[in-house]
Amino acid sequence: MLIERLTIIGVGLIGGSLASALKATNVCQEVVGCGRNVENLQTAIDMGVIDSYQTDPTLAVQGADMVVVAVPLGTMAKIFTTIHDYLLPTAIITDVGSAKFSVNEDAKQLGKHFSRFVPGHPIAGREQSGVAASIPDLFKQHVVILTPTEVTDAQATEKVTNMWAITGAEVINMSIAHHDSVLAATSHLPHVIAYNLVDTLAAMDAHTEIFQFAAGGFRDFTRIASSDPVMWHDICLANQTAILEVLDEFNADLTKLATAIRENDSQTIMNVFKRAKKARDNYLLQRKK
Amino acid sequence: MLIERLTIIGVGLIGGSLASALKATNVCQEVVGCGRNVENLQTAIDMGVIDSYQTDPTLAVQGADMVVVAVPLGTMAKIFTTIHDYLLPTAIITDVGSAKFSVNEDAKQLGKHFSRFVPGHPIAGREQSGVAASIPDLFKQHVVILTPTEVTDAQATEKVTNMWAITGAEVINMSIAHHDSVLAATSHLPHVIAYNLVDTLAAMDAHTEIFQFAAGGFRDFTRIASSDPVMWHDICLANQTAILEVLDEFNADLTKLATAIRENDSQTIMNVFKRAKKARDNYLLQRKK
Repeated sequence: MLIERLTIIGVGLIGGSLASALKATNVCQEVVGCGRNVENLQTAIDMGVIDSYQTDPTLAVQGADMVVVAVPLGTMAKIFTTIHDYLLPTAIITDVGSAKFSVNEDAKQLGKHFSRFVPGHPIAGREQSGVAASIPDLFKQHVVILTPTEVTDAQATEKVTNMWAITGAEVINMSIAHHDSVLAATSHLPHVIAYNLVDTLAAMDAHTEIFQFAAGGFRDFTRIASSDPVMWHDICLANQTAILEVLDEFNADLTKLATAIRENDSQTIMNVFKRAKKARDNYLLQRKK
Repeated sequence: MLIERLTIIGVGLIGGSLASALKATNVCQEVVGCGRNVENLQTAIDMGVIDSYQTDPTLAVQGADMVVVAVPLGTMAKIFTTIHDYLLPTAIITDVGSAKFSVNEDAKQLGKHFSRFVPGHPIAGREQSGVAASIPDLFKQHVVILTPTEVTDAQATEKVTNMWAITGAEVINMSIAHHDSVLAATSHLPHVIAYNLVDTLAAMDAHTEIFQFAAGGFRDFTRIASSDPVMWHDICLANQTAILEVLDEFNADLTKLATAIRENDSQTIMNVFKRAKKARDNYLLQRKK
C-alpha cells in the first residue's frame, strides 16, 4: 500500500480527481476529505471520492501519512499554520498550487515538518470546477511539476512522484523560479490579458453588440475570462514578480506592433504574424510525434 | 430565380459556402468561380460548388447579375479596377471583407457601378480555410452585416439582403463606422493580441517548455494565432484607426491592472476579474434565451 491514510484539504476538481485516481488503483487505503462546505464533502462521499470528512483541518490530518493541500493560494499559509502541530512526524505534505515560490514560503509555517513538504503543480483542469466535475483520468498524459528544494527530503519527493505517476501523469522536476516564470508565461499572463480585454470591451458603449457579434477570437477570450476570479486573484499576487516581468515583454512587443500598424509597416506586421503562426504550427507538429 | 448568373471572385471558405448554400436552394441558375489557383477552382467544380470557372476576372464577371468579391482586403482595389469596364449595367456587386471603410473606398474604382455596390460582412468562419472546407450551412444562424451608404441603390441592398437571408443568415444593417469599431473590438484586436502574445513567448529562452506546458489559457491564444497571416495583415491596415483606438483603451486598462498587481491592490484586481466573468456569464445567459 503506497498510502495508508490520504488527507485532501480542499476537495474540488483537482483534489477530488487525485483521490478518485488513487482509489481506482487501490494504492490508497483511506481518503479523508477536508473543507468548509459540508454539502460539497457529502457529494464527494456519495461519489465515492472520499471515505470520510472533517471540517476541521487539525482533525483531518490526524494519522495521515500523506496530506495534499488543494486550496486557493491565498489560503495556503493559514492551512499550514493550522495543521503543523497535528501532523504525524513522518507525514508527507504536498500541494497543487499554480505558483510555487509563494507556497514554499507559506509552507515554512510547517516548522519541523517543512523538510517533508514537496511543492507540486499538476498542469490539468477542466472548464467546470468543484468535486462534481472530478474524474480519475484528469491527470492521464498530463504533466505534474514538482519543485523540491535543497532542504526537501528525497524520500518525500519520491513518494509524491510515485503518487502522481499512478494517476497516469508524467512527473517532472524543475526549480521554483523556473516553474514560476514558465507558468507566468503559459498560463497566468494569458488569463490576465483575457480578463483585461473582456473587461475593456464590456465597458464600451457598444458592448451589447460586441458580445452579440463575438466571433472566433473574442469567444476564446471570454472563455478564459470565465475562470474563478478568486483563484486568479490569488495567482496574480502569489506570482506577481514573474507575471509582471513577462507582461513587460508583452507590452514592449505590443507597442512595436501598434507602431507598425500605425505606420503601415507591412514587413513588421507580417513578421510577427508569421512567426506566431510558425511557433504554433511547430508546437502542433511536435505534439503529433 | 433570384440570381441568373452569380460570379464569385475568390472561391475560398466564404465564397464557396455562399455558392453552395445558394445552389442548395435553387435560387441561382449558374455560378461562375474566379481565382488564380486552377487546382482550387477544379476542386470547387468537383464539389459542385461552382459550375464553371475563369482565371481572368474580366471574363468571369461577363453577364453576371450578381458579383461577390471574396478576396483578401489588400486585393479588393485591384479587383474593382479590373472588373469595372466589364460589368453589366445592372450588375450588383458586394463583398465579404472584415473591414468596411477601406472596401467602400476601394469600391469607388467601380465608377458608374459604385451605386450598385453593397458592402457586406458575414460573421462566420471555421478553423479550416479554402473551398474544401466550405459547407452550405456556414451562415445558418449567423449574422451578416450590410453597410449600405446614402449613395447605395436600395434595390441592390434588397437583393443582397435576400441572397444572404436564403443562406439562413440574419441580415442586419449598420453604418460603416459602427461596423468597423465593433469588429475592431470583437475580432481584430483579439487577433492582434493573440498573435503578439504567441510571438512574445516564442522568443523567450524557455519557449520549448512554454509550448509544452501550454495550459488552457495559452492554447486558446495559439489557436487564434494560427489564422492566415496575410488576411490579418490586410485587416490591420484596412481597419487601422478603429483597431488602434480600441487598443489604446485596452492598454490603459492593462496599465491599471498591472499597477494593481504590483501594489497588491486586491480590490481592483477582483473588480476587473469579476466584471469580466459577469460580462461573459450575462452573454451566455442571453444567448440561451
